Amino acid sequence: MNVSEAILHELVELGVEACFGNPGTSEMHLVASFDRVGGLRPILGLFEGVCTGAADGYARMAGKPAATLLHLGPGLGNGFANLHNARRGQSRMINLVGDHATYHRKYDAPLQSDIHSIAKPVSDWIGDPASGEDAVGKTREAFAVAMRPNGGLSTLIVPADIAWSEMKGAPPARKGRAGAKPVDMALVREAAAALTSGEPKLLLIGGHAGLEKPLAIAAAIAEKTGAKLFCDTFVPRLARGAGRAKPDRVPYLGEMAVMMMSAFRQAVVVGTKAPVAFFAYPNKPSTFLSPECQVHTPWSVEYDVTDVLAAIAEEVGAKVVATPAARSETTLPAAGKISVESVGSALAALMPEGAIVSDEAITSGLWAYMATQNAAAHDWLSLTGGAIGDGIPMAVGAAVACPGRPVINLQADGSAMYTIQGLWTAARENLHVITILLNNKSYAVLNMELDRVGATAQSERSRSLLSLDKPVIDFTAMGRALGANAVRAEDNETFVKALKRALAEPGPHVIEAMMF
Amino acid sequence: MNVSEAILHELVELGVEACFGNPGTSEMHLVASFDRVGGLRPILGLFEGVCTGAADGYARMAGKPAATLLHLGPGLGNGFANLHNARRGQSRMINLVGDHATYHRKYDAPLQSDIHSIAKPVSDWIGDPASGEDAVGKTREAFAVAMRPNGGLSTLIVPADIAWSEMKGAPPARKGRAGAKPVDMALVREAAAALTSGEPKLLLIGGHAGLEKPLAIAAAIAEKTGAKLFCDTFVPRLARGAGRAKPDRVPYLGEMAVMMMSAFRQAVVVGTKAPVAFFAYPNKPSTFLSPECQVHTPWSVEYDVTDVLAAIAEEVGAKVVATPAARSETTLPAAGKISVESVGSALAALMPEGAIVSDEAITSGLWAYMATQNAAAHDWLSLTGGAIGDGIPMAVGAAVACPGRPVINLQADGSAMYTIQGLWTAARENLHVITILLNNKSYAVLNMELDRVGATAQSERSRSLLSLDKPVIDFTAMGRALGANAVRAEDNETFVKALKRALAEPGPHVIEAMMF
Repeated sequence: MNVSEAILHELVELGVEACFGNPGTSEMHLVASFDRVGGLRPILGLFEGVCTGAADGYARMAGKPAATLLHLGPGLGNGFANLHNARRGQSRMINLVGDHATYHRKYDAPLQSDIHSIAKPVSDWIGDPASGEDAVGKTREAFAVAMRPNGGLSTLIVPADIAWSEMKGAPPARKGRAGAKPVDMALVREAAAALTSGEPKLLLIGGHAGLEKPLAIAAAIAEKTGAKLFCDTFVPRLARGAGRAKPDRVPYLGEMAVMMMSAFRQAVVVGTKAPVAFFAYPNKPSTFLSPECQVHTPWSVEYDVTDVLAAIAEEVGAKVVATPAARSETTLPAAGKISVESVGSALAALMPEGAIVSDEAITSGLWAYMATQNAAAHDWLSLTGGAIGDGIPMAVGAAVACPGRPVINLQADGSAMYTIQGLWTAARENLHVITILLNNKSYAVLNMELDRVGATAQSERSRSLLSLDKPVIDFTAMGRALGANAVRAEDNETFVKALKRALAEPGPHVIEAMMF
Repeated sequence: MNVSEAILHELVELGVEACFGNPGTSEMHLVASFDRVGGLRPILGLFEGVCTGAADGYARMAGKPAATLLHLGPGLGNGFANLHNARRGQSRMINLVGDHATYHRKYDAPLQSDIHSIAKPVSDWIGDPASGEDAVGKTREAFAVAMRPNGGLSTLIVPADIAWSEMKGAPPARKGRAGAKPVDMALVREAAAALTSGEPKLLLIGGHAGLEKPLAIAAAIAEKTGAKLFCDTFVPRLARGAGRAKPDRVPYLGEMAVMMMSAFRQAVVVGTKAPVAFFAYPNKPSTFLSPECQVHTPWSVEYDVTDVLAAIAEEVGAKVVATPAARSETTLPAAGKISVESVGSALAALMPEGAIVSDEAITSGLWAYMATQNAAAHDWLSLTGGAIGDGIPMAVGAAVACPGRPVINLQADGSAMYTIQGLWTAARENLHVITILLNNKSYAVLNMELDRVGATAQSERSRSLLSLDKPVIDFTAMGRALGANAVRAEDNETFVKALKRALAEPGPHVIEAMMF
């Protein structure tokens, strides 16, 4: 058995099932090993940002890492932005980055670059093995890091000569995996005291606390103590819909966030950190809580969020009770022009139980988020790191992780063009991904941000950097070019019809919703 | 005047004319400044890899840097692969990377990351200014680095609060630019001695020595001394066609390169370094020259290639004489299926004088390169760093630098999908870029490389990572979706007709040549 096979075999033994890759020459032995090692599904992305974003979406839904297969420094660089989002989303991933043969490195061949320097900002762990046995051992370490209670991103560099060599000895013995640290009861009691104090108080959750079980516990704590339950603006995966708790989302707009949060004097934060502004703006605050608010952090990354919330619940005497999963009345939008509101209403009415939403709708998505609060139970995946180009890949990964559950990708036009290649992977793998492409022919959020930072664009010259007209992109033709079923909807009737059909017919769909 | 305006104003004063950007909130004051500072053309790319690749193509043709405008670490990360290619091509560039306000950095907001770590592998210089005056001073430093004799990549980080603040004082006084170091006559004489020795000898050029003037001097030296003239496999910009020298290209395939180069005992290398294999392969050599060959390097990056070659020419008594620009007979391909040969013949026959070729045709491009040796005089731009996704952006940048000269982008399908977004910029700017999309529905080079590394792919499973069928991408529909005139050619007659029309009608064209 050569080392490539041994690495893939080890991944399979550890439970890794999917590998999103775009290999090159230095990864060819790993490619060939997919034939000889069963159980690991190779999935081609036409660009590495698709691979890393898909692996992120996969991990959010599967609760375990996928592997990626990337071609030296430039391949890793191409995947950087979605690794950044994955890091901010506390996701799990094992990146296999092929490299030149160790003896070839000294020649500084054209594709050589400083892989460590690129990997560092987006890796919790970097492995650069010295032998085949070490490579297999480091594969285990990579997996262990990815399976930490609050996620981890591992980057394993695989030099070509190690990959193609035969295994000589046995890799180091497997170790038991370290679990989460037991909760710190002193911190838990401090949090419980804050939550039961007479002062205005809030419980803020984020990260892995958006999953069904910890969310339910958080809601029970809030219910019992009278604390206001908030969640981060962008939670990696939030259990939503009928029967689920409805935390208030920290607003993206700082002015609104400050208004909503200024009265609180006690804050308990689990799974995330105290909220900060996405950007700084002249004469606007960088943080949202009042300076008089006491912040308590019973959680930090080495603890399991569910353990921490359960301990707080125990302290305050809160019990999770099943809430009736009654759905609100929904109505399909009336005939007429498509708007953010009508897209939201249609979604709320039609989305089936178990749907997954990959939300990169930016300005167009706020309404849909609100409208679907009482829709059938679903999971909502957000852009966690602000690096656009995550929506399409994340939908691909979620669909691979959850066959049988439709994935609805609410997708803005500007960010769609960052990783449009992902539509092809959805087509090739015949994934039930419905891309609702909200075409407003502009980076609408930036026109808003331009004003918010106090800048003014007076002419076509500067506005040209923020608009997507001239020419308007034809996303319907684009979807078809990449193998998806694609429909353009200029009115609500066409949109609703297309969405119904897309939900009923598994496979890749693009619905271009014209918003101008 | 605020600092954003002062930075742009300084760039204009220095002679920078184009800025390829995709800004976000942290760059909004720079965006607004385009209105108030004339002379710097803002050009939107739908993905940062388009911006950095276009800036590279621009610099290769303009001989001076363009600016890019990128959004924090993830924006720079998205531009990484083409920055890597630019670095390998000794290109020139000034990257303006917006960052959070300095006082906001401590909050670790979602888009924060280690910009320095990402920039380091692809930057010759990184500036992180402490004030507005310092930012303007550092803009000058960035330009000076980019204008070094053999190129330079500068990364200037611009924190939002510095960008929006008013200029308080004057920036440091401008300094005269340091020129190239005078040639080292001892090294020049050593090279001249090697070239006039009785041993088998070669002169290898690359980098900036591919331009018309240094190439002509190199050819005169070879003619005078009987040395064999070689050029790198991938020269950033090579003056070619009738009337120009025809150096032998170092073959990509190491076996062929070793065969061609093993007999030489003296080698003089200018503008590049002694040739090395692109990748290592089991039991194949990493370098091409014989161990018995003495390598002389009269050039290193601080010297100007033309100065060095002129000094060698002087020593050996070589004189540049104009060679008659006689074109060989060319014939249009006969009716029938499109092949790499027929594409080459059509190009050789139809390409007008002054055309620019952006070559990312990978396996399909070798024939076209050979076929056009005696075509009308033209410039040939190659993928210098091996990071695919440079062809379309480079064509965009070259067209911006050279209005009036048609740019022919010979483009493989797999690499096209890396930065397909660049077609839109060509359409928006109405550039005369003709993308010849060679659709063979596979990463053909990787099927070859798989065998070359001694791996075998036995099943559909591993081959699936190397093929682009299921579904076949419709590049004609894609081109139209992004605003180009697009034609699908299944035979030579259609191809020739489409190419004639595209050459005659300035503006963006896609010709999808079906190669299967």
